[in-house]
Amino acid sequence: MSELRISGDLVADENARRGDALRSDYEALGANLVRRGIDIEAVTAKVAQFFVAVPSWGVGTGGTRFARFPGIGEPRGIFDKLDDCGVIQQLTRATPAVSLHIPWDKADPKELKAKAQALGLSFDAMNSNTFSDTPDQKHSYKFGSLSHVDAAVRAQAVEHNIECIEIGEAIGSRALTVWVGDGSNFPGQSNFTRSFERYLASMGDIYKALPDNWRIFSEHKMYEPAFYSSVVQDWGTNYLIASTLGEKAFCLVDLGHHAPNTNIEMIVARLIQFGKLGGFHFNDSKYGDDDLDAGAIEPYRLFLVFNELVDAEHRGVKGFHPAHMIDQSHNVTDPIESLISSANEIRRAYAQALLVDRQALSGYQDDNDALMASETLKRAYRTDVEPILAEARRRAGGAIDPVATYRASGYRQKVGKERPAVKGGSGGIV
Amino acid sequence: MSELRISGDLVADENARRGDALRSDYEALGANLVRRGIDIEAVTAKVAQFFVAVPSWGVGTGGTRFARFPGIGEPRGIFDKLDDCGVIQQLTRATPAVSLHIPWDKADPKELKAKAQALGLSFDAMNSNTFSDTPDQKHSYKFGSLSHVDAAVRAQAVEHNIECIEIGEAIGSRALTVWVGDGSNFPGQSNFTRSFERYLASMGDIYKALPDNWRIFSEHKMYEPAFYSSVVQDWGTNYLIASTLGEKAFCLVDLGHHAPNTNIEMIVARLIQFGKLGGFHFNDSKYGDDDLDAGAIEPYRLFLVFNELVDAEHRGVKGFHPAHMIDQSHNVTDPIESLISSANEIRRAYAQALLVDRQALSGYQDDNDALMASETLKRAYRTDVEPILAEARRRAGGAIDPVATYRASGYRQKVGKERPAVKGGSGGIV
Amino acid sequence: MSELRISGDLVADENARRGDALRSDYEALGANLVRRGIDIEAVTAKVAQFFVAVPSWGVGTGGTRFARFPGIGEPRGIFDKLDDCGVIQQLTRATPAVSLHIPWDKADPKELKAKAQALGLSFDAMNSNTFSDTPDQKHSYKFGSLSHVDAAVRAQAVEHNIECIEIGEAIGSRALTVWVGDGSNFPGQSNFTRSFERYLASMGDIYKALPDNWRIFSEHKMYEPAFYSSVVQDWGTNYLIASTLGEKAFCLVDLGHHAPNTNIEMIVARLIQFGKLGGFHFNDSKYGDDDLDAGAIEPYRLFLVFNELVDAEHRGVKGFHPAHMIDQSHNVTDPIESLISSANEIRRAYAQALLVDRQALSGYQDDNDALMASETLKRAYRTDVEPILAEARRRAGGAIDPVATYRASGYRQKVGKERPAVKGGSGGIV
Amino acid sequence: MSELRISGDLVADENARRGDALRSDYEALGANLVRRGIDIEAVTAKVAQFFVAVPSWGVGTGGTRFARFPGIGEPRGIFDKLDDCGVIQQLTRATPAVSLHIPWDKADPKELKAKAQALGLSFDAMNSNTFSDTPDQKHSYKFGSLSHVDAAVRAQAVEHNIECIEIGEAIGSRALTVWVGDGSNFPGQSNFTRSFERYLASMGDIYKALPDNWRIFSEHKMYEPAFYSSVVQDWGTNYLIASTLGEKAFCLVDLGHHAPNTNIEMIVARLIQFGKLGGFHFNDSKYGDDDLDAGAIEPYRLFLVFNELVDAEHRGVKGFHPAHMIDQSHNVTDPIESLISSANEIRRAYAQALLVDRQALSGYQDDNDALMASETLKRAYRTDVEPILAEARRRAGGAIDPVATYRASGYRQKVGKERPAVKGGSGGIV
Repeated sequence: MSELRISGDLVADENARRGDALRSDYEALGANLVRRGIDIEAVTAKVAQFFVAVPSWGVGTGGTRFARFPGIGEPRGIFDKLDDCGVIQQLTRATPAVSLHIPWDKADPKELKAKAQALGLSFDAMNSNTFSDTPDQKHSYKFGSLSHVDAAVRAQAVEHNIECIEIGEAIGSRALTVWVGDGSNFPGQSNFTRSFERYLASMGDIYKALPDNWRIFSEHKMYEPAFYSSVVQDWGTNYLIASTLGEKAFCLVDLGHHAPNTNIEMIVARLIQFGKLGGFHFNDSKYGDDDLDAGAIEPYRLFLVFNELVDAEHRGVKGFHPAHMIDQSHNVTDPIESLISSANEIRRAYAQALLVDRQALSGYQDDNDALMASETLKRAYRTDVEPILAEARRRAGGAIDPVATYRASGYRQKVGKERPAVKGGSGGIV
Repeated sequence: MSELRISGDLVADENARRGDALRSDYEALGANLVRRGIDIEAVTAKVAQFFVAVPSWGVGTGGTRFARFPGIGEPRGIFDKLDDCGVIQQLTRATPAVSLHIPWDKADPKELKAKAQALGLSFDAMNSNTFSDTPDQKHSYKFGSLSHVDAAVRAQAVEHNIECIEIGEAIGSRALTVWVGDGSNFPGQSNFTRSFERYLASMGDIYKALPDNWRIFSEHKMYEPAFYSSVVQDWGTNYLIASTLGEKAFCLVDLGHHAPNTNIEMIVARLIQFGKLGGFHFNDSKYGDDDLDAGAIEPYRLFLVFNELVDAEHRGVKGFHPAHMIDQSHNVTDPIESLISSANEIRRAYAQALLVDRQALSGYQDDNDALMASETLKRAYRTDVEPILAEARRRAGGAIDPVATYRASGYRQKVGKERPAVKGGSGGIV
Repeated sequence: MSELRISGDLVADENARRGDALRSDYEALGANLVRRGIDIEAVTAKVAQFFVAVPSWGVGTGGTRFARFPGIGEPRGIFDKLDDCGVIQQLTRATPAVSLHIPWDKADPKELKAKAQALGLSFDAMNSNTFSDTPDQKHSYKFGSLSHVDAAVRAQAVEHNIECIEIGEAIGSRALTVWVGDGSNFPGQSNFTRSFERYLASMGDIYKALPDNWRIFSEHKMYEPAFYSSVVQDWGTNYLIASTLGEKAFCLVDLGHHAPNTNIEMIVARLIQFGKLGGFHFNDSKYGDDDLDAGAIEPYRLFLVFNELVDAEHRGVKGFHPAHMIDQSHNVTDPIESLISSANEIRRAYAQALLVDRQALSGYQDDNDALMASETLKRAYRTDVEPILAEARRRAGGAIDPVATYRASGYRQKVGKERPAVKGGSGGIV
Repeated sequence: MSELRISGDLVADENARRGDALRSDYEALGANLVRRGIDIEAVTAKVAQFFVAVPSWGVGTGGTRFARFPGIGEPRGIFDKLDDCGVIQQLTRATPAVSLHIPWDKADPKELKAKAQALGLSFDAMNSNTFSDTPDQKHSYKFGSLSHVDAAVRAQAVEHNIECIEIGEAIGSRALTVWVGDGSNFPGQSNFTRSFERYLASMGDIYKALPDNWRIFSEHKMYEPAFYSSVVQDWGTNYLIASTLGEKAFCLVDLGHHAPNTNIEMIVARLIQFGKLGGFHFNDSKYGDDDLDAGAIEPYRLFLVFNELVDAEHRGVKGFHPAHMIDQSHNVTDPIESLISSANEIRRAYAQALLVDRQALSGYQDDNDALMASETLKRAYRTDVEPILAEARRRAGGAIDPVATYRASGYRQKVGKERPAVKGGSGGIV
């Protein structure tokens, strides 16, 4: 009983108009790849099996501390959000899972599961929230949550995380992502050591509640909302957390949570090597945690991250199965379009990384032939793999050009009529 | 007819308890300075005449895009805000002027003037807002304001700025500060050249409405709320604006609006040299536009900025009279306490800069004696000038220890009873 | 009377082996571009006319302050360097001009011209050196050159620059690039204002000696070799220099000379808009002035810079003719290979920028359609234009695969025998 | 049998001239501290027992990749360097140990010990060099050392480190500092995982040769000399090294080796908490590894680092005894003066940190009183502790004003006559 909101006929019609061009480009690319010893079909098959989860909060318009400017047809709650996620999956066939954020997405688990099933969706990692207060909350997180000086606040935050696990259990999730805003705005405000001890103890309590087949992901971030220190500020601290907690604990890497100029792909390699890479929050950034669309600013960096992932796959690293999630803030675009486009960019980086001639690369590395090693990556990267991505979508029932098809469907205008307009406004005045 | 909310007797009592210690420290410092050829009285007199404006929005609790956690006794409107500013001025005697932000602070000009007068306050630069939408606004600023592609939006933004000037005229302000969030989140979204042409044309229209005895300050910022490009991204662009507009146009420097590692004091020197330094938004930061309390993170940087200001004063630079304003976001402190403390830190940097032996410094510079030049600055900087600051406050009727006196007064608890509690909440989920 | 060191037959043979594949790829790309309304031949023709100058110092192995590890066959002087540059031009047909650095490249102008002519080369901008001392030099630049406190040092530096112009005049150059290391390592060491006044006066003296048909390029850099302040630290200061000097003065942009996270393409746009873009030092970087191979780290950034250049071309900006130069340090590669590869990457960015559908882009900008504007740039960028680059080389007599052809020629081994081995060693111990 | 080069009489005379002023300032400070519950004598006693090692390479003039500008009287070898270090210790009484760098400082261990003893010096951590080649070296480190792809190169680098341990054993050192330049300049050049595996294996071999009472310090650095990736790029990797190697392995923190905006004091706290803080290379920086004089750029940051150290001392952290070393490059000052001044700045930060009211701080932290917590640190920091530093020197036989006394001694002019002038020159032109 599908609830899909875009008609299969429209998708078929749109694809029909683009079929010849795709065939031509796909064949030309195939011929080029054959000369490089690569079977395009093998690549297309792998791409078709690569998925990335969509965050429920990503389908609403984002904002900054200065303002939020809503778009039309903003989702009113988790069921509207699931509808929007369904559209993304229908057109891309790359995003079959949704990542929920509690408390915003709380609902009857049975209804959630039924709705998701009807849309061809399932549920990825659960996300807790202890970085803002909810109206009914007993203790405030103004001065921290899992690392708060007051045991009562910590207990409340632990309990909330355990509730997220319980909800997740009920809807088929298998992981909990924990990101806290805990930190300080002034030197001296927090005792770094005591804060981290408290954080570790709280996480230990959550860990005890984690089912055996679950994983827990801790997420580091250099700064914001705390502007002098953050309790989980970088991958070094994140590694200490995961190794202190145990074998079900892993590190989550958000591409925008690092210091300027950081070599993120190297962090990814280190975490893989030491068995602690849990997964990703994909997005792009130029300055800080800008939460821009994946691949929009530094696409080569995204490729280099995937180069590490494909290399690990290639080497058959034991226990390697990172979670792929998008985490973006869509302030000036239609969120559905941005998520469609971002899923595509992430698959693009994966496809390009699959094209790397790893044997040649390894040889150049052994020969200290830096130029040809670089060229080996660049050659894979500059291959226009769009035909592979489009073909993978087409074969799975998605759209050759998902953004154009989405626009042709008039979905946004339709939900604009169903869902009441939302007023924007300024943030916390600054 | 004073409306001051803290009793003069309390201030006197508090000062009395601290009088002996201050006298002792002041004398010891005076003796030390005499050996360095400096008359402490001359320094104290100059410090007493140094003022910095308080932003009306600074007395409310700030927030991030993730959350805002209000404190007790949040001001309900501009008149409450003026009360709070009155307390700051009463205790510090360093902040006799308030900088208003329109539309939030709109009120009957006569009432504003009367209230300010009763509190011993006046009005500094006006601030316009075209970075967020107000409920009654015809056109949205989602995609820009003064540089928007649509002439109607630009006209609305120009008109709003002109209204700010008019309000300012009515209440005795003499300057307009223009900061816009205009920019883009994606490469390609904006045409850099066309955007800047439109911005300059809009600013030209505002400039035409500027009274002869007014100044207009443009404020640059590297990023946020736009995360790929900002129309007024740095001092280079800011200088182009001020020199294009005319002699009443100047550049405003916010200490947190620069690229990582930027030598801000050098920008200050350049703008002074080319006659375009308009003034400052003081605050401190470690990562981006963190809006932390002035001097909280890198106090030596604040001193180095003041070193340039005092040097310009010393050289008698023609037409040099920069505006001093605070612009901070107080997320985890009582805003009144942060503003008291920040005003003090800013005066501290000024006092330290006054202690620099400029003749010796100049000699070391001519001799390429880098070590002694550095030491000359450091010697001034490491002098504990707190006795000078306290004595300047005391003599002007303020408090020797203004934060302690403020706490002793119970002001926050009192307004907490008068002003209804405000709920916090999350920002535009991100 | 060609002195070219690689036989034309070898090039022909190498090209013959790659001809069929190129033809196939070129045709497929042509077919794809036709569907996008682009004539591949027009693009290939433009690319063939795009050139970038090679720096004479770039053909030697670079180093860091820690060490220099020479390769085999290091050029012994300017004539060896020209031989190496000849090879690069022979194979790429993209680098017909060489940029000299005085004093290292000083030689009889007639001999220089003759040698260059025999290699099919000419001379681009001259580069002066006042950032290090030469053995015979009267005054040291330890504490600065054009901005030095001592007039005698400044005069020496001015004279050296004038000599560079004179040498340039004799060999057909038309521009002088001035980069100075002047700055300070300690707060207080330099008076920012006095230093810049002296710099401007010295540059004024050089400017007076500039022939009418010459241009002078000032180059800014955030830091290094000075680590607290640099006299020409950013484009804002650079703009002040160029506008103070006069209409023959322009700003040079080195891609690695900016603060972290800087939007360089925006600076390029501003300088074009205000008529002061002189040209580029192309390279790539991740941290500071890393001087890595162009396009090696952030190829999309290089594309975005070229997007601005092609846009200016498209708009027919008056007097727009920036100089294109490479400035890199080749520490771990054969410098000839790196320069071949870099020239190719620069042409790649140019070719990609030519593919941008500017009419569509402009429409998306006017509609605030950020997603499609971004996608318009990305579509051009992700097109694999290697067949266009290869075909442009082939038609002009260069190599389809210039690095492979270079390796096949055994040039490096040959000069390794002719040129004595050089010992490496540590830098200024640090 | 002292070889001290500055006469005790001169020191005494110089001190005599400054004795009264010091007494007066010391008494005034003592009176102020008494009111804050602090016994100045206890602080002075602790400061007198705080020492920092001087690097042998620090007494020569440093340079950049662009140039080195030698000063007069450059030390010709390790014995000249020890003379210079003797002067620093004689005047400051804060630097009784010297850290050697092999191969530059290789000499007969007995002569080294005798010379040091005569100067009142001992030997701190040994430093190996595998970041540059020496003339007699079999294999080049151009492409790495401990992580090189070639086992022979790695073996050579391991052997060199073991030789450093042996030399150290002979002269009384107890630690080996290992910093390598290993890394890559291009994506793809190195396999991150393989490189790090090789590095760990090589370090394991060195570790095996470490005497039981020794410690080994690994030093991380974000970039330079490698400009895309470094094998030991940050504290996260450094922690993995130290914990993999064993209980004698620790992390060394160089204040200039971090990403922009990094909260270094927090890294220090983490390493203390997890038992892996080995020590410091003190210096200051504004942009990268600028190697400027400690406390010259961000003195408050230095204080915050010491705040963590004193806090750990205060808490009685088991096994806490970090090594304190200076690592700076003196390009524009007399290196002896810079080292005197830097030792003083480091002691200053220590003394200020001793003044922090830790009980009050802890209380403010428990109360989430961010403002007073910050103020508690600032109050200690802004105390002018120069009288304490001067008095500690005086009592130990050093100079009240060591730079002035050094200048009065004419030491630099004397060695200028004994030691031949050295020519400067450019680095590896870049």
